[in-house]
Amino acid sequence: MPDREPVAAPDAETHRAAAERLAGLATPAGALGRLGDLAVWWSATQGEVPPPALDGGDDVRLVIFAGDHGVAAHGVSAYPPEITGAMVRTFVAGHAGVSALAIAHRVAVRVLDLGVDDDLVGVPDEVRAHKVRRGSGAIHLEDALTADETTRALEAGRAVAHEEITAGARLLLTGDMGIGNTTPAAALVAAGLGVRAEDVVGRGIGVDDAGLARKKEVVAAALARGGDRTQDPVETLTALGSADLAATVGFLEAAARAGVPVLLDGLMSVACALTAERMAPGAAAWWAAGHRSTEPAQSLALAHLGLEPLLDLGLRLGEGSGAVAAVPLVRSAAALLRDVALLAELTGPTG
Amino acid sequence: MPDREPVAAPDAETHRAAAERLAGLATPAGALGRLGDLAVWWSATQGEVPPPALDGGDDVRLVIFAGDHGVAAHGVSAYPPEITGAMVRTFVAGHAGVSALAIAHRVAVRVLDLGVDDDLVGVPDEVRAHKVRRGSGAIHLEDALTADETTRALEAGRAVAHEEITAGARLLLTGDMGIGNTTPAAALVAAGLGVRAEDVVGRGIGVDDAGLARKKEVVAAALARGGDRTQDPVETLTALGSADLAATVGFLEAAARAGVPVLLDGLMSVACALTAERMAPGAAAWWAAGHRSTEPAQSLALAHLGLEPLLDLGLRLGEGSGAVAAVPLVRSAAALLRDVALLAELTGPTG
Repeated sequence: MPDREPVAAPDAETHRAAAERLAGLATPAGALGRLGDLAVWWSATQGEVPPPALDGGDDVRLVIFAGDHGVAAHGVSAYPPEITGAMVRTFVAGHAGVSALAIAHRVAVRVLDLGVDDDLVGVPDEVRAHKVRRGSGAIHLEDALTADETTRALEAGRAVAHEEITAGARLLLTGDMGIGNTTPAAALVAAGLGVRAEDVVGRGIGVDDAGLARKKEVVAAALARGGDRTQDPVETLTALGSADLAATVGFLEAAARAGVPVLLDGLMSVACALTAERMAPGAAAWWAAGHRSTEPAQSLALAHLGLEPLLDLGLRLGEGSGAVAAVPLVRSAAALLRDVALLAELTGPTG
Repeated sequence: MPDREPVAAPDAETHRAAAERLAGLATPAGALGRLGDLAVWWSATQGEVPPPALDGGDDVRLVIFAGDHGVAAHGVSAYPPEITGAMVRTFVAGHAGVSALAIAHRVAVRVLDLGVDDDLVGVPDEVRAHKVRRGSGAIHLEDALTADETTRALEAGRAVAHEEITAGARLLLTGDMGIGNTTPAAALVAAGLGVRAEDVVGRGIGVDDAGLARKKEVVAAALARGGDRTQDPVETLTALGSADLAATVGFLEAAARAGVPVLLDGLMSVACALTAERMAPGAAAWWAAGHRSTEPAQSLALAHLGLEPLLDLGLRLGEGSGAVAAVPLVRSAAALLRDVALLAELTGPTG
């Protein structure tokens, strides 16, 4: 599976048949709005018309990639890095925000420590099975990863995608946990789009004005340090990313190459999607955007990918929460295209 | 239950305790965005902190009020009036758009014929139990209803609200079906807000330019004919409404007076909510807005009621579909405030 190989779009014939079914439903033309478009996308990604329902349980699966970031020690976050490990434990215990949403909407959740700066003693082994390192480098001062670590993180993400697909995923979601992670994610977006630090940096989960200014300096310094290496998506991950973000990129790339759709979350998910699209042109056809984050870089990257978020509720929790909250909309779309009567049935000889 | 009596807001102490719990969750301040606000509203309307979950089945209930409108014979709709009765049969059979959504999201659906211009032979008796008349008057030429019919329709809506609450509703939804109904609904909004026909008239489910112009003329003529009677909400229903819209108003008023929240749908639902608020000041505190309709009058009325829609997906299906599609967001909000760990629990002596 060489990098840069284009990804085939969802089957064009299925897409055409799904659009034809939508037009034939016993509803006024266009009345389903964006749920109609989402339904056609869903049907095409599943290769079935009418599309399968999305029952929940095994078929919708969220993977949360956790890791720490050296920049967190440099004033870019309102929270201390120790929170990352504590939140991994909270996911395992099922008491986090995304845990509550996932139970409500029947989404399977898996959390993986790719680079938490803690040995997480007592946390189940499978959570740490793909760990690449403790913490990733402070990107304004040093590379986030070695080239070998980037390769391992990408491969871990790809392997996890295949495991989730084998477990029955029809729809995958990505989530993140890592204090400071909006800084490298913003840097990935700036590198991917060729824009400046001030265009991509936001307040994350709540940094103050001084922190915001510091964050812009850090991203600007990181981009300057990355230099020409940011022309290459894999080298961008080595210079500006992290183990958890690189794994997310590998996961998104592998899911698209395997023909399994992903509902994207906030900035981290979308920054990784942008990077995955650089590695696997065309992959974006397999993605839908769950929600609009409050981070400006997320909107810039979504616009570049041609994706419009389904929800816009001011969420800035991370964890995959915006993607999980949007799962019922995919379920709505699938139900409409699958279960609504066709006009031809209602007006046919027996109707 | 006299008209114009103010409605008590959800319990202030419960609201305060719910906001305090939200602030105490192990999530960053404000990170839940509008889902946090929705959770506090939900908790206050239920009088419980933490709030109950919203399981579906009996506790979320949609009532679709169906009726025909004399204006439909005057070029204001892209569809023939016969569709109204056909769609009532489709709801009964469970094959409409909202049927598919309601099954997917575990919402109980009831359809009632208040004023369909068809005897609906063969449709279950309970659907027709509250029928007021066959079709309502063409409002640019004549009153929609007699004063007695308005009273009966309002009472029917109130009775249905009480029946649904007795059946276990913790959350109610209203839906509509009736070719031509965006015309009287726009007139209700114009009357309620004191604005002009051209400010409230939209394309409904797809009228062309000529139809749009005709619709503005019809609403303007109806408002002129209504005259000073539009100062009074009940007389407004008699002059400019319909049996199905008046019943929806009674339903919304009674639900608010009984302290049961309603998730509003598109233009018809919100036009009736605006009218119910005129009859029962303060009722809007019991409502949330499911989605933004493509009809301008809906946005005007929501702004007046102080409500911001949860979804904005370009839906213009009617039937209550936008409210049903938003039910999972109330479920998300309830789950977050109920099930996420409190910071005090995580950091307490045993944490």
